[in-house]
Amino acid sequence: MDAQPTLADVRRAAKRIRPYAHRTPVLTCSSLDAMTGAKLFFKCENFQKVGAFKFRGACNAVLLLSDEEAARGVATHSSGNHAAALALAARLRGIPAHIVMPRNARAVKRSAVAGYGGEIEFCEPTLAAREATLAEVVARTDAAVIHPYNDARVIAGQGTAALELLHECPDLDVLIAPVGGGGLLSGTALAASGLAPHAKVYGAEPRGADDACRSLKEGRIVPSIEPKTMADGLLTSLGTLTFEVIRRHVADILTVSEEAIAAAMRLVWERMKIIIEPSAAVPVAALLEHGEVARDRRIGVILSGGNVDLEALPWGHA
Amino acid sequence: MDAQPTLADVRRAAKRIRPYAHRTPVLTCSSLDAMTGAKLFFKCENFQKVGAFKFRGACNAVLLLSDEEAARGVATHSSGNHAAALALAARLRGIPAHIVMPRNARAVKRSAVAGYGGEIEFCEPTLAAREATLAEVVARTDAAVIHPYNDARVIAGQGTAALELLHECPDLDVLIAPVGGGGLLSGTALAASGLAPHAKVYGAEPRGADDACRSLKEGRIVPSIEPKTMADGLLTSLGTLTFEVIRRHVADILTVSEEAIAAAMRLVWERMKIIIEPSAAVPVAALLEHGEVARDRRIGVILSGGNVDLEALPWGHA
Repeated sequence: MDAQPTLADVRRAAKRIRPYAHRTPVLTCSSLDAMTGAKLFFKCENFQKVGAFKFRGACNAVLLLSDEEAARGVATHSSGNHAAALALAARLRGIPAHIVMPRNARAVKRSAVAGYGGEIEFCEPTLAAREATLAEVVARTDAAVIHPYNDARVIAGQGTAALELLHECPDLDVLIAPVGGGGLLSGTALAASGLAPHAKVYGAEPRGADDACRSLKEGRIVPSIEPKTMADGLLTSLGTLTFEVIRRHVADILTVSEEAIAAAMRLVWERMKIIIEPSAAVPVAALLEHGEVARDRRIGVILSGGNVDLEALPWGHA
Repeated sequence: MDAQPTLADVRRAAKRIRPYAHRTPVLTCSSLDAMTGAKLFFKCENFQKVGAFKFRGACNAVLLLSDEEAARGVATHSSGNHAAALALAARLRGIPAHIVMPRNARAVKRSAVAGYGGEIEFCEPTLAAREATLAEVVARTDAAVIHPYNDARVIAGQGTAALELLHECPDLDVLIAPVGGGGLLSGTALAASGLAPHAKVYGAEPRGADDACRSLKEGRIVPSIEPKTMADGLLTSLGTLTFEVIRRHVADILTVSEEAIAAAMRLVWERMKIIIEPSAAVPVAALLEHGEVARDRRIGVILSGGNVDLEALPWGHA
């Protein structure tokens, strides 16, 4: 699907996925307000099905398949939240999901996909092997490939989180979301372009995986090469569709250090009593580090997910 | 204050503290429903001010003081959530709070109390020293002592959590709350006695601190002697007021192992993406262990708090 996604797509996606996705709560936190000088509204996608916003896009894409397409199933390669999201979305429609995962994918991720009924195809842990294995699966099954972010259906679905947030908090000055492949950020920007055209939309990115920041500066997609960050949802490069939306609608990409990510994650755990994954802490870290963006503003923050390894937290010993 | 608290006290407390306390959300979780065979409604007091239900009781007690009493301040001995709750409640009324804490109280607890403006008096870590130091403070200041649980004002305040839950979910078959000194459980029972007279109210207690269970069986207050549990909010003995309410209105006290507490806490973190402290996991563990109580019932679960040491989680290494 090569068409650019539009605001109308986001609105239709919201209606389409409503019976299946959670309308996640918006939380506030006076401690974090005091620390940033802002008034923050946290859209809690860590409470979304499969524990991440990814369910929105996968669900929208699966529901948009014709019955004939759907009958052949869906396929993707992913070792993260998109894999679980696509498996669950497929199960809700009663169709097969073929998930290509690297052999070294974490056991907890594998069992999540299997638990949602996904059919896992293991491959070597290289991008080439993942793509080759996916091509084999598609050749065998004729399943529809659902890309994790460079797909207008997926982008539109991810934008529904910001759409809900803006319905609940219409007068935001700023929206901020983490950026990996750019599905969430571009969907957020599309939603804001319609519902809050005066709001500035920021992306937040680890300094050790700052390809989106450099892409925006250079005006071309700079690939993510050997990214180093604990924010394991933000390792990938932008896609053609997401880059186009981000280039047009996003004010800036703010980058943060690993220490700031860990500190922000811990702050949210301690003060808000909710579990967010490192990728979700990146925009919080950005607001704490970039006072000039935050101060005196009403800010919507997309907390992207809460799937974290409780055995390996980024602080001390437990 | 020796009068027995009543349902009317709980109703008045709810009105009184409304401008100050959070009306905490009620969350559901399909995974935990599937595991227990019940339909669970979690009242999230981990999101309450100071991170625990304790703010409700402390706030109600402070607001019930006459202006003359209030001017002399409040005092208590506590090393836990009640200390922070009383300090914050006093600050909101603009009066001093004298908090007697053992010298070995954890730094995080001390700084919470100090952060809310409480005046800390340190003492040796024995009950005798705590009581003696509190007596000295009261002799010096004439401050009003607010007991953490054996006080009708405090019990009525704690009952407001269940009152809110029952307004939101009127048709519950069961309510369950952890029991330490019994303030939360007796308040919950009072609220249920009025709003859901057919609902059964259960307490949940660690097997290593099962004095409430034994008290109910023996028909007298069995003191808690050398309790051993990670649920550090549930170490104390029942009081005369709380025992009387529990004896009358509570169906049973369910006890659970330490392993079950840790497992339930981890389940809530992983599946609900919210942070609860070990004491709050005790009723969840009880429902997982006591299928006969849970199955096919609509159950209100009071998640009592979320103040947990992120450096010392009850599972593996982090």
